[in-house]
Amino acid sequence: MVSENCYDVTKYPTGNPREDIGAVINNIIADIKNRQAVVDVNDGGKPGSVIYIPPGDYRLVTQVVIDVSYLKIVGSGHGFTSSSIRFNTPVGELAHWHEVWPGGSRILVDISPEAADGEAAGAAFYVKRNGNPRISSVEFADFCIDGLHFIDDGSGQDDAENTYRNGKTGIYVGSANDSFRITGMGLIYLEHGVTVHDADALAIDNNFIAECGNCIELKGMGQASRIANNFVGAGYRGHSIYAENYAGILVSSNNVFPRGASSVHFSGVVRSSVTGNRFHSFYPGMLVFAANCCENLVSSNHFLRDREPWAPMQKYDNGLDDLFGLLQIDGSNNSLIANHISHTIDTQYIKPPAAKPVIINVVSGSGNYIANNHIVATTEIPQKDGSDTPNSACFSTQVSALLSIGNSTSLDVTTVLVQKASVRNTVLDSGNAEQVVMDRTVNAFRGTPAPGQ
Amino acid sequence: MVSENCYDVTKYPTGNPREDIGAVINNIIADIKNRQAVVDVNDGGKPGSVIYIPPGDYRLVTQVVIDVSYLKIVGSGHGFTSSSIRFNTPVGELAHWHEVWPGGSRILVDISPEAADGEAAGAAFYVKRNGNPRISSVEFADFCIDGLHFIDDGSGQDDAENTYRNGKTGIYVGSANDSFRITGMGLIYLEHGVTVHDADALAIDNNFIAECGNCIELKGMGQASRIANNFVGAGYRGHSIYAENYAGILVSSNNVFPRGASSVHFSGVVRSSVTGNRFHSFYPGMLVFAANCCENLVSSNHFLRDREPWAPMQKYDNGLDDLFGLLQIDGSNNSLIANHISHTIDTQYIKPPAAKPVIINVVSGSGNYIANNHIVATTEIPQKDGSDTPNSACFSTQVSALLSIGNSTSLDVTTVLVQKASVRNTVLDSGNAEQVVMDRTVNAFRGTPAPGQ
Amino acid sequence: MVSENCYDVTKYPTGNPREDIGAVINNIIADIKNRQAVVDVNDGGKPGSVIYIPPGDYRLVTQVVIDVSYLKIVGSGHGFTSSSIRFNTPVGELAHWHEVWPGGSRILVDISPEAADGEAAGAAFYVKRNGNPRISSVEFADFCIDGLHFIDDGSGQDDAENTYRNGKTGIYVGSANDSFRITGMGLIYLEHGVTVHDADALAIDNNFIAECGNCIELKGMGQASRIANNFVGAGYRGHSIYAENYAGILVSSNNVFPRGASSVHFSGVVRSSVTGNRFHSFYPGMLVFAANCCENLVSSNHFLRDREPWAPMQKYDNGLDDLFGLLQIDGSNNSLIANHISHTIDTQYIKPPAAKPVIINVVSGSGNYIANNHIVATTEIPQKDGSDTPNSACFSTQVSALLSIGNSTSLDVTTVLVQKASVRNTVLDSGNAEQVVMDRTVNAFRGTPAPGQ
Repeated sequence: MVSENCYDVTKYPTGNPREDIGAVINNIIADIKNRQAVVDVNDGGKPGSVIYIPPGDYRLVTQVVIDVSYLKIVGSGHGFTSSSIRFNTPVGELAHWHEVWPGGSRILVDISPEAADGEAAGAAFYVKRNGNPRISSVEFADFCIDGLHFIDDGSGQDDAENTYRNGKTGIYVGSANDSFRITGMGLIYLEHGVTVHDADALAIDNNFIAECGNCIELKGMGQASRIANNFVGAGYRGHSIYAENYAGILVSSNNVFPRGASSVHFSGVVRSSVTGNRFHSFYPGMLVFAANCCENLVSSNHFLRDREPWAPMQKYDNGLDDLFGLLQIDGSNNSLIANHISHTIDTQYIKPPAAKPVIINVVSGSGNYIANNHIVATTEIPQKDGSDTPNSACFSTQVSALLSIGNSTSLDVTTVLVQKASVRNTVLDSGNAEQVVMDRTVNAFRGTPAPGQ
Repeated sequence: MVSENCYDVTKYPTGNPREDIGAVINNIIADIKNRQAVVDVNDGGKPGSVIYIPPGDYRLVTQVVIDVSYLKIVGSGHGFTSSSIRFNTPVGELAHWHEVWPGGSRILVDISPEAADGEAAGAAFYVKRNGNPRISSVEFADFCIDGLHFIDDGSGQDDAENTYRNGKTGIYVGSANDSFRITGMGLIYLEHGVTVHDADALAIDNNFIAECGNCIELKGMGQASRIANNFVGAGYRGHSIYAENYAGILVSSNNVFPRGASSVHFSGVVRSSVTGNRFHSFYPGMLVFAANCCENLVSSNHFLRDREPWAPMQKYDNGLDDLFGLLQIDGSNNSLIANHISHTIDTQYIKPPAAKPVIINVVSGSGNYIANNHIVATTEIPQKDGSDTPNSACFSTQVSALLSIGNSTSLDVTTVLVQKASVRNTVLDSGNAEQVVMDRTVNAFRGTPAPGQ
Repeated sequence: MVSENCYDVTKYPTGNPREDIGAVINNIIADIKNRQAVVDVNDGGKPGSVIYIPPGDYRLVTQVVIDVSYLKIVGSGHGFTSSSIRFNTPVGELAHWHEVWPGGSRILVDISPEAADGEAAGAAFYVKRNGNPRISSVEFADFCIDGLHFIDDGSGQDDAENTYRNGKTGIYVGSANDSFRITGMGLIYLEHGVTVHDADALAIDNNFIAECGNCIELKGMGQASRIANNFVGAGYRGHSIYAENYAGILVSSNNVFPRGASSVHFSGVVRSSVTGNRFHSFYPGMLVFAANCCENLVSSNHFLRDREPWAPMQKYDNGLDDLFGLLQIDGSNNSLIANHISHTIDTQYIKPPAAKPVIINVVSGSGNYIANNHIVATTEIPQKDGSDTPNSACFSTQVSALLSIGNSTSLDVTTVLVQKASVRNTVLDSGNAEQVVMDRTVNAFRGTPAPGQ
């Protein structure tokens, strides 16, 4: 052992990390608490520890419970691969595959909670501490948490591996916390990837959190946190990035891919930023501000919505129709500035049929400022239906769909709709007079100029 | 030892890292120089080394002096916790706390310099090398530098731990340098966090530098550097991010919280970017461009100024009044585009009394381009005065203040003021004709449209 | 050895990493494949491994061939220093230098491929695997790949070390791949830094890739990738960031410095983002969208073009003249919003002589949206010619040039030129009626207001 505060799960004398890494890590945490028992020794005494998980497969049967500050759990590989493609590939094809499971420093979550026990019960890593101070500087870095399988959802679809449900959570933080870091992780096939309550100065950076029911969820209330430079993509039921009652969040430079019922869903979030992200979705409601979100900035983002091109998932969606708004805003004094929004869909898939899709839908509140957004709406180039394409060809199917722009035609949309309940908004250069629908006696408007004017 | 170029401070045979990690690291550096003495051996010969600091408490009595390139000093934990909350909590409460000090791979700075010796004398890590080439690729990663205490400032306030003064600096780079990296660090209770002179291609990324008198200071002259994805928050006297005579800096995706006399202060800085940041401040002067800053871009940032809600700090501020400008610009050809600015303050706290606060104040120069900034000015919801709230409840106090937007009313402000000394500026869609004050015969203007126009 | 899946190149029993680290790593990969031979054992079985390269100089004679997923190769130092300055410094001066080579965990690429063998033959690291699934989660982190020398290019210039040619590539990925990460690397003096074909969810973050012929090249076709927070700067012949036939790329927060024939060159790229970057170039054609790039967003970037101030490189350029466009756009429905563009050059260096430089040149396509770009064009302050400055003073020469803004005068330019082939574009607030040249009967226009209007 390099130092008394450096642990390696494969070298710890108690427990077998291959069979239950959870028990091993809990033993290590008990050892840390035992060794670092005094609150203040010579201006210190509780520096925490680092626990290393070498590359390998480790089953987790016992939930890890973290109640010490300054604990860093670190691996050497995020280990992401697409389990979704694998589970939608015929067994016959799989026989020729090089590998079928994620890898790296990989934790196989074997917890099978009862739904009644709640999310925390299904968490591989559960952080909770009462009292003061808030638990601080717990770090998760560079390892993989794999929920292995989704389970049947009772819908009768007989499509268990595509339900995005299994009651498992990767990391669940249940009490107020400060200066946590979740970086470089790979999270996959979990119903919830990362759920954090009551965070202050939380960093969720450079992770790969995909093929999870929900990816990143900030709950309770909190402030001054950052979700940046992640690859994220939830299931069709869930949120890619969700926050409620937070202030001062920075959602920046993420590449958020489908499916995801939403790319970003804020509820009662204020004074936060969504900037410089690339969002891709298959459904309306890519960005939702609900429950009076105020004074947020949405700028320099690229939004793309097209239709699911991959056959195994075409039967699913998030249930919203094209009148919901690709972006829906409930709240006041928000800023939507300098975004590019591409909306491309063949008219046959518009819901309700023959509707004119709404891109930005302001449903309530006042004082929102919507300026210099470039909205490009086109009918999609019909793709071949995919039924003759092997499901394993998800990548080429998706990229081909994305690249096939050449001879699309423009689609008639409402670029901005301000509902009657909302007033004193300003809409500038985000569509012409036909495309922007609102009461101009109570909202300010300047249409994008047209040629020849 | 894994390799001759890998050191662990706890395993090095000379010195005791618990008592003086500075002496140990200096011994290691001497060993590196001794072993890597020849400039060019078989196309190499001076690859440097890595020095590992395991989690633990390490006093630093002797200043570390770094004069070799390619030295990486790395720990396993940034170890941040709020010492400010702790030092403002009654001793009686502290008795029940889980821990009271920062942690991780933590260096306790025991240097007590005389003020007359200058900043370098108080630095835990002092980098300096004369001659050619510039010292290159020194890296600091993932450890904690803790200044432990602030000291009385002679003001008679008897509030030593809130002075942000102790003469200590975390990392001080005193000579020209190239391709340095400071990442993942935790810096706390230092009068100066990171001070770098004459940098080229410096990266300061993903750090937690807070509760320091000043956080990041770039001095001398330099270019092409990046300050990104940090959590930063200086004391009420100091700068969160400061630069002078630099070109081509990218300040991006930082979450800068109060207090900080400024969030960003540039002096003579040119052709640099401040984009995609979230800034929160309690005082005017959040962003200051001084001494003829030119051709800089400020875009897609979220600025929020409200009033200090936490009782122990309400007696301090940065001394500026609301006519100074929340952003003050001295210089030419700068661009301020697509920012959201929230300014919320109860009228009783406006200084001078009954003044109309200025948001963007252009004090000199010409050719600045100020467009599509959304300025939201409101009176703050009166909070309870906090005197009955325990000081340890800083988090809930702050978040409650931030979230309490509901029934605020709008505040009359000057959104843009262009002083007479400044001409040929362009102000577009950043306020109406009453809110933008300037000589329109020498500056260009287009007001934000009003409803019904 | 910490664990069976953790390797250290200096401890592996077969081969000598100082003489040929390539052979050692290939032996390790063979061992991994031998040990992890079964596709599915107990829900796992192929977690991959981590290979550690301690700081040191390691020659690479044998190309590393990677065909296993979840392999992480990691060092402890990116080791960048400027070889360009060193090779342009007289030998007499070098005798006094502290060090002359890059360092850190440094690989010296000794492969000398025949040009006829193609790029892959000259790669230090060659990743390729056929069949399914795509190779996943290979990671390169925190080490240095040094091509050592450039070679004579037959031009008769007798300036071999400045040719940016040697047939060497740092990392070459030749087959479809998923969730790769290239982070924290230092790449130098390679004709090609990183070349990746057919990537999905690739992350190229926080690297230092400079003084390479080309830095980052995405080829074939791919999607949903990120190039963020890098320092990048190619040679005058090559691309700093290049992509072809990709969708959903996010190029974010990079600091791209000269020289580079282009800072960003996209060919047939769609629905991608270039946001929040700082670009600096010495030539026209900083950003090129070729071959029908569509629906891309370019926002919140800082572009600076000035003249090469460093004597040894003043004889080179990328061959383009000032009518090419500092940014050239071939494609439809792109968005250029909220960028700052500084163009500063002494009139004597404009090509063709007396031409009016073009800043944004839309050469084909339709529906592009160009709004709120602030274009600052000035004549450069004449610098001393540099002939009396030592070449090693590259840093001070460059920074002095950048900072010398004071008394520049404005330069007459075409801020936006829309060629006849391109229609239905919208140009707003990006220049006045004289500065924006296009057919206003088929394109929409609103000029930046002038003072007194």
